[in-house]
Amino acid sequence: MSAVAAKESYLHPLDPATAEEIEKATALVKQLFFGIPLHFKAAGLDEPPKRDLSAYLDAEHEGRPLPPLPRRVFVMWYIHRTPRLFEGVVDVTNNKVEQYQELPRDFHGPVDRAEMNEAAEVVMKDPNVRKEIQRLKIDDTTIVLDPWDFGVDGTETQERHTQVFMYIRNPENNDPDSCHYSFPLDFMVIVDLVAMKVKKILRLPLGADQKTTEVFSDVPHRRTNLFEPEYTHRLQKNPPRTTMKPYQVIQPEGASFTVKGHLVEWEKFRFRVGFNWREGMTIHDVSFMGRKAFYRLSLSEMFVPYGDPRNPIYRKGAFDLGNVGAGVTANNLALGCDCLGVIKYLGGHVVGNDGAAVEKPNAICIHEVDQGIQWKHTNHRTKNATVVRKRQLVLQQIITVANYEYIFAWIFDQSGEITFETRATGILSTQPIDADAKVPWGTRVGDGVMAPYHQHIFNVRIDPAVGGPNNSFVYSDSVRMDWDEELNPLGTGYVNKETTVHRASSVQDSVADGRVFKIVNPNIENPVSKTPIGYKVVPIRSQMLLAQPGSWHWRRSEFGEAPMWVTKYQDRQLFPAGDYTNQSLGGTGIKSWTTHNPDPVVNEDIVVWHTFGFNHIPRVEDFPIMPAEIAQMHLKPYNFCNYNPTNDVPPSNQEFNKSVLYEDQQAAASADLCCRNKL
Amino acid sequence: MSAVAAKESYLHPLDPATAEEIEKATALVKQLFFGIPLHFKAAGLDEPPKRDLSAYLDAEHEGRPLPPLPRRVFVMWYIHRTPRLFEGVVDVTNNKVEQYQELPRDFHGPVDRAEMNEAAEVVMKDPNVRKEIQRLKIDDTTIVLDPWDFGVDGTETQERHTQVFMYIRNPENNDPDSCHYSFPLDFMVIVDLVAMKVKKILRLPLGADQKTTEVFSDVPHRRTNLFEPEYTHRLQKNPPRTTMKPYQVIQPEGASFTVKGHLVEWEKFRFRVGFNWREGMTIHDVSFMGRKAFYRLSLSEMFVPYGDPRNPIYRKGAFDLGNVGAGVTANNLALGCDCLGVIKYLGGHVVGNDGAAVEKPNAICIHEVDQGIQWKHTNHRTKNATVVRKRQLVLQQIITVANYEYIFAWIFDQSGEITFETRATGILSTQPIDADAKVPWGTRVGDGVMAPYHQHIFNVRIDPAVGGPNNSFVYSDSVRMDWDEELNPLGTGYVNKETTVHRASSVQDSVADGRVFKIVNPNIENPVSKTPIGYKVVPIRSQMLLAQPGSWHWRRSEFGEAPMWVTKYQDRQLFPAGDYTNQSLGGTGIKSWTTHNPDPVVNEDIVVWHTFGFNHIPRVEDFPIMPAEIAQMHLKPYNFCNYNPTNDVPPSNQEFNKSVLYEDQQAAASADLCCRNKL
Repeated sequence: MSAVAAKESYLHPLDPATAEEIEKATALVKQLFFGIPLHFKAAGLDEPPKRDLSAYLDAEHEGRPLPPLPRRVFVMWYIHRTPRLFEGVVDVTNNKVEQYQELPRDFHGPVDRAEMNEAAEVVMKDPNVRKEIQRLKIDDTTIVLDPWDFGVDGTETQERHTQVFMYIRNPENNDPDSCHYSFPLDFMVIVDLVAMKVKKILRLPLGADQKTTEVFSDVPHRRTNLFEPEYTHRLQKNPPRTTMKPYQVIQPEGASFTVKGHLVEWEKFRFRVGFNWREGMTIHDVSFMGRKAFYRLSLSEMFVPYGDPRNPIYRKGAFDLGNVGAGVTANNLALGCDCLGVIKYLGGHVVGNDGAAVEKPNAICIHEVDQGIQWKHTNHRTKNATVVRKRQLVLQQIITVANYEYIFAWIFDQSGEITFETRATGILSTQPIDADAKVPWGTRVGDGVMAPYHQHIFNVRIDPAVGGPNNSFVYSDSVRMDWDEELNPLGTGYVNKETTVHRASSVQDSVADGRVFKIVNPNIENPVSKTPIGYKVVPIRSQMLLAQPGSWHWRRSEFGEAPMWVTKYQDRQLFPAGDYTNQSLGGTGIKSWTTHNPDPVVNEDIVVWHTFGFNHIPRVEDFPIMPAEIAQMHLKPYNFCNYNPTNDVPPSNQEFNKSVLYEDQQAAASADLCCRNKL
Repeated sequence: MSAVAAKESYLHPLDPATAEEIEKATALVKQLFFGIPLHFKAAGLDEPPKRDLSAYLDAEHEGRPLPPLPRRVFVMWYIHRTPRLFEGVVDVTNNKVEQYQELPRDFHGPVDRAEMNEAAEVVMKDPNVRKEIQRLKIDDTTIVLDPWDFGVDGTETQERHTQVFMYIRNPENNDPDSCHYSFPLDFMVIVDLVAMKVKKILRLPLGADQKTTEVFSDVPHRRTNLFEPEYTHRLQKNPPRTTMKPYQVIQPEGASFTVKGHLVEWEKFRFRVGFNWREGMTIHDVSFMGRKAFYRLSLSEMFVPYGDPRNPIYRKGAFDLGNVGAGVTANNLALGCDCLGVIKYLGGHVVGNDGAAVEKPNAICIHEVDQGIQWKHTNHRTKNATVVRKRQLVLQQIITVANYEYIFAWIFDQSGEITFETRATGILSTQPIDADAKVPWGTRVGDGVMAPYHQHIFNVRIDPAVGGPNNSFVYSDSVRMDWDEELNPLGTGYVNKETTVHRASSVQDSVADGRVFKIVNPNIENPVSKTPIGYKVVPIRSQMLLAQPGSWHWRRSEFGEAPMWVTKYQDRQLFPAGDYTNQSLGGTGIKSWTTHNPDPVVNEDIVVWHTFGFNHIPRVEDFPIMPAEIAQMHLKPYNFCNYNPTNDVPPSNQEFNKSVLYEDQQAAASADLCCRNKL
């Protein structure tokens, strides 16, 4: 182990846990539970407490000697085939389990693929499931199972379950890559994951009420959908379009960024990239123009509640980060597919059930994009124009959660702006519907196929360090001035009304007031504006959680009620629906933290949390695969700099950009054609 | 003229007015006013009435013989140096002035550059202005004048004015391209444009009240701003950054679009591009997948009211389209500067004061962009992933309105989505401020330089033809279902509540209700969803007009009150603040059209108008030039197609995209360096 230890000693405190570290940690846990079979659920870097890490980062930035910091790994495990769940922290620098605890019986670990596959096997062998299959007169080999995390319904909350939705492959080709969501069966199965056996079989309702199929159903025997072709080109009868010509990004002098380990430097930004099983990509220690801006940025949670009120669909409500993990489900990104130009990939590791490290290669891609024009001015007196293009650095991650895909990106702009982008794509989770039925909570997207309305509610955690650790959160409304013969005689005046949030709480948005949210550092004045330096938070304005107050969905997704929250920083307070979301009962999230005697948050080490959502009312165009729904949240410097930080970007010109006139290209193409015709 | 006439006979009814047509029209007007000196203000295509044009377009689409349609030119002119304003329509096919009329005395034509330059000369020669210049002890040759259109203040509304703001060049270099907005003078001048003489000189207030400089002011003698460098690289003392490496878009097989005349075809879209002096670029006769979608799309107006309540700033409130014109101010776009890849440029013509056509070359650029990922799915069972990239077609126009630039783009997406994008950039209009003063309606952006808060309020006119001419406008809210033991036992259910707008009116938005706006065709059912085909209007959610109800700003910008409006189509009803916005008194815009006995709009030929805005609270980062503020409105097919229209886009792969690994590029660069070192 000495070689490993020597290698580890060079790791930065924010570097993701390595394979060696994860395996060392699980080995130490196994020693502790010697002879007892364990089922590992999660493992990853346990980030140092802020006090220690800040001291380290300050030393690093100032070129002082670095204080020693032990590397720690967080581990979560079950005693195999029992409800006994544990979490612990292992110091892998000093080879000891620093602490561990057994969790209360109503806390549940995330689902995992191996367990889901086991459940699927159990389902297929169950005699009552076999009866259902016989009833439908279908062949086993065509069946596809979609096990989901289980939504709490108020009964049997201490038992760990999965709910399995049932489909068949396209009967025309029976291909494993056909879109089985076009062929839903009329029953589903609930499996007890501790006993690992089928607990309940439920028929699905097929119309606008709770009525289900009684006997034989022709649901799976419908012909292939009359309209939508397969999305998999291999299976399509019609060949792909040939009208779209290649579009290549060429960077003849290479990329403008450098990546050393997990440290990224690009234009006037410097930051570190992290990765863990739950949040996937994280961003740390961001500075812009040499000034600290953010301590940590992350997608902290997402909740996908479905609006179909009927049993069993009412149990569909998944916390895709807490219940599954954005690191665990990270796609292996491929050159030429997921981005263009010069691309740097970063990978990471998660843990297998047996405690072995599992590589997640190419989980993050880093590349530049040209986003059109950054600024332009034409002096009409001299006719001189200057144009500067808008270069951005994109860090992208894609996760697959069963049917859905999410594409998450942190995007850095030369202007100092940081954007978090979400794209929702993939395949709708579907249910069968009667030939002529309509339902008010879903859209018919195929022949007898219904996609229920659902929300995707995200929360982004913004741990700011605008000019330093102590910040305040303020919002500013634009309000019209009263008529005044002296000072507002034409009624044109308006001013900003600024409110500082004093205690940890949720904060409402207001489009009508033109509300602007800002993180400011009251200790540093911008010498030009003579106001505090800051960063603006530009929210994604969206509808909040629709589930009824008091419902399980509502109790469990505490962040889903308000678009903005501010809290005082606490170590390990990272997840606004609580640390354990799978089958959670609520009461451990951000609302709970801010309800009783809330912390003061003025000129303190604060954290800002932004909740936004897609309300997905499916369109026919979203099937059989969904064009990405895109939303962007922005962090913009707000009197943070002393002038436009893109002032020194070289102007755009043809020598640099090598564009081509349409007419020249047409002429070249026809010359080429002409030559070919001669041959 | 016969050669011209022959050439003209091949023009499409939607092609912009040619130079020959404009000059023929002004010649015919001059004949009518023989011997009277005229000052032409505007000229451009007078589009055919919808009844005639629809018949023509239908015949064109169906391959039937085309009905003859005369080409008409709209012309606006003054009798030179008088307040007498006329408008008329000239049939240039049949060589006759079809109709013309003199307009009421409180209607005013747009400003024009020649007139503004004349006013500037008058200002510089005025003896009282000369006294002000002497007072300030500055040199004539350093002075820069910024004439603005004049905001109505309730007095002398029938006289045509300009208001001229005064600056000097950077005293350090006295360069004509230096940023004079960093050096505002403490007085401004109002010019009577009919008499063409100075009417009034006003000192500017310098603090948080109306108090102005009494005697000598050191305002123009401040040193160059201590912080912000010039944005013009030629003038900068510091050289541009060298960290940004070239990024080229290569389309080896050329563009995927074709442009024939003004007809554009790209992927599954087909439409025509128009151009006129006022709106600039317009989009016509849009179909997607062979089905009609929109009859006409345009930016219809924009209003920029300033929030500084003091005299004379309270007169700043410009209608940049109606008062100036997005065609008149269109930039000549240059290869390699304003877009990348293979680019098609289209130009147009406006009119000079003398009636001669003035070319606006390269006013519109057409090019493709790669916008990341359109859709992706990974089948976790087979590990097979399919990724399709998101190709878009961008039609871009850039206008310069004195200090500001606007970048407008209509963006077509393979998914059938159409986006209108606005980027606001250019330079803030500034005023002087005392050394230590702060004002609640503006931001200090330089040493003694204040940029007042202001709004940019845009309106986009959407003339739909979703599946045909008769459409309805509906909005749909997502509302939670009541608890119900039978049908909503867990409180998870939600449904859509749809409201059809029955009469022409404004329509409010509601983020809290997740409001979705749709244009539907109640006569055509989507066979999959069994609901009407439609297009969704995704608004830019923003604060509406802040000026006091009853104020001139409020009376004049009738569209500024509500985010959505629907009207019944009327020929020539294109401008929601009225046809004549310059010094307008209100009462001729969209509110007036929808107030008394509003038209029925259910299953009618309707027009939808979307108002959105930027509330620009300047940041220090916005100076001396502003990184673009970007907003996008979307039109998305909503059960318009029978499946995902991007289903047949070929999957993304390395052969097509030619991406490069960061490590390979690094290796290549160091090999290159190594070779060079050897030489």
